[in-house]
Amino acid sequence: MSRFLKDRYAALEAYTPGEQPRDMDYIKLNTNESPYPPAPAVVAAMSGEQVENLRLYSDPTAKGLKEKLAALYGLKESNIFLSNGSDDILNFAFMAYGQNGAIFPDITYGFYPVFGDLHGVEYEEITLKEDFTINYEEYFGKNKLIVIANPNAPTGISLPLSAIEGILKSNPDGVVVIDEAYVDFGGVSCYQLIERYENLLVCRTFSKSRCLAGGRLGYAFGSPALIADLEKIKYSTNPYNINRLTLLLGEATVEAERYYQEKCAAIIETRTQTAKALEGLGFEVLPSDANFLFARHPKVGGEALYLALKEKGILVRHFRKERIKEFNRITIGTPEQMQKMIEIIKEIIQ
Amino acid sequence: MSRFLKDRYAALEAYTPGEQPRDMDYIKLNTNESPYPPAPAVVAAMSGEQVENLRLYSDPTAKGLKEKLAALYGLKESNIFLSNGSDDILNFAFMAYGQNGAIFPDITYGFYPVFGDLHGVEYEEITLKEDFTINYEEYFGKNKLIVIANPNAPTGISLPLSAIEGILKSNPDGVVVIDEAYVDFGGVSCYQLIERYENLLVCRTFSKSRCLAGGRLGYAFGSPALIADLEKIKYSTNPYNINRLTLLLGEATVEAERYYQEKCAAIIETRTQTAKALEGLGFEVLPSDANFLFARHPKVGGEALYLALKEKGILVRHFRKERIKEFNRITIGTPEQMQKMIEIIKEIIQ
Repeated sequence: MSRFLKDRYAALEAYTPGEQPRDMDYIKLNTNESPYPPAPAVVAAMSGEQVENLRLYSDPTAKGLKEKLAALYGLKESNIFLSNGSDDILNFAFMAYGQNGAIFPDITYGFYPVFGDLHGVEYEEITLKEDFTINYEEYFGKNKLIVIANPNAPTGISLPLSAIEGILKSNPDGVVVIDEAYVDFGGVSCYQLIERYENLLVCRTFSKSRCLAGGRLGYAFGSPALIADLEKIKYSTNPYNINRLTLLLGEATVEAERYYQEKCAAIIETRTQTAKALEGLGFEVLPSDANFLFARHPKVGGEALYLALKEKGILVRHFRKERIKEFNRITIGTPEQMQKMIEIIKEIIQ
Repeated sequence: MSRFLKDRYAALEAYTPGEQPRDMDYIKLNTNESPYPPAPAVVAAMSGEQVENLRLYSDPTAKGLKEKLAALYGLKESNIFLSNGSDDILNFAFMAYGQNGAIFPDITYGFYPVFGDLHGVEYEEITLKEDFTINYEEYFGKNKLIVIANPNAPTGISLPLSAIEGILKSNPDGVVVIDEAYVDFGGVSCYQLIERYENLLVCRTFSKSRCLAGGRLGYAFGSPALIADLEKIKYSTNPYNINRLTLLLGEATVEAERYYQEKCAAIIETRTQTAKALEGLGFEVLPSDANFLFARHPKVGGEALYLALKEKGILVRHFRKERIKEFNRITIGTPEQMQKMIEIIKEIIQ
């Protein structure tokens, strides 16, 4: 850190992404990537000519991809914002709407407090209930920036639509961001509520259910006024924020919708089997609507299990936060990967 | 714009990128893209397998590309920051180092005042001299964030290394950003000064001389302390900021250095020919070290020429700012494109 750095940033603690070790071939179940490749039509959309066209800037309006998303979801282009991964959208939301403070759960995506600190937004973290569900009534009538991951991470637990509508109704002067990064694995999206609530911003990503984590493509749905705010910040930071190839692959992805629905169904099926197997080994497994499971064992500590699995070539994500430190977050891989993991866990807990 | 938007942003005027019209096939000389495709080895680096691997996140440390850049420029990896286009670096620099205000020329890259407004950084714009060169002595002893494009845009005029060193020496308590987006077309880089000046940040891009505008890849050179600042902000906004394919193509680009040097030489040659031809038609052409020319005609107004060229299928960039409104900025294309443009300009000015 230099002596020139602005004081607020000097004190900042940055986000720590999941480890990406280079020393051996792991079964990588630690960053919620898809075990499946993008659809064949997406792979086929790439060509030498497209790479040659990288000499040209991407379309800053991303009109082609917005048109396709609008058609798929029955929205207007003016309801859609596109970004270089959904972290960008969350970052912009904290910039744009945090002036009266922010509220989010104490156990959730670890980036929310970082965005708060980065932009000098004061935030309150609401404790999850005993069963790790979101105590949604505590978000009523706050009129601040409210940020809720639904399903929540790392728990995987969903909040029902009625609870979200309650939060929206009771906070007419605060923007409510619903982060639906994991919604396609069994959650219920609230995006249709954008027609009725001008304070709703729904944040999504191609990284998980669309198998494009490395492509960096996020999107948000909201009222045209909210979308215009985000566009303004984008045009004031990085107008060409999305890679030209990613826009192309994003369009092919939207067209291959059926492929991704099948892969989501496969992941849900694998999740059900894996949860059963873990429970059979004595684990407590939270009810997940995401592409991961959050589980703890009464006899093997969270960190011990994480380290033992790593030694055996399997990476999962462990968090040191007090209340969840006996858990591990396990991304759902292929059935074969999960079977292998279960066998290794069996050995470990014996 | 919504009623929720933070006041500072509500008043903000965003940057306007060059137009990207869809209604006809233009000879596009308005956004300083390369007329040449990336090197054949870069195109060959793409494969179906690489697209399939997009299911995985990119390496947030971008170690592979940093190693190659370090070897090419004789630096350490800790001297290098990578970003999603160089606009991101400029944005971070205004965030990180603007607390005592900023200074830059009144005629330069139009994004600098936008970053200033975005982050609430007060800035002073120093008037260019009569001949459109930078009055560099006016930047001495300010100890604020100083941002200078070298060569400058849209003039194309370079500042000598001695002037930059003077600015660095006299501003020990302010960070000096030298934006070298266009340096490879005849300018002299100051990057080796990072060894001696801990306040120097050199900002560069793969968009122009590396034919990857659509790939979104920028980089900065600086002291390890400055680079650590930028990394901290990156890890607090978007750790996976660079596309996985772009990292791959970036590595292949660094390896194909000779191809790009040849293309830069070709563009410089075409620029010389084009400047001569324009001068032959009565234009005043500023002495450019960039991949564009900035020129005005004593008899045809800047906007009139821009519009007449557009009607004939050639896009150049016109700015409405008072002092430069009789100029147009013309990107150097292929020799054939330039010849065509000269013929059309001949018709227009007759």
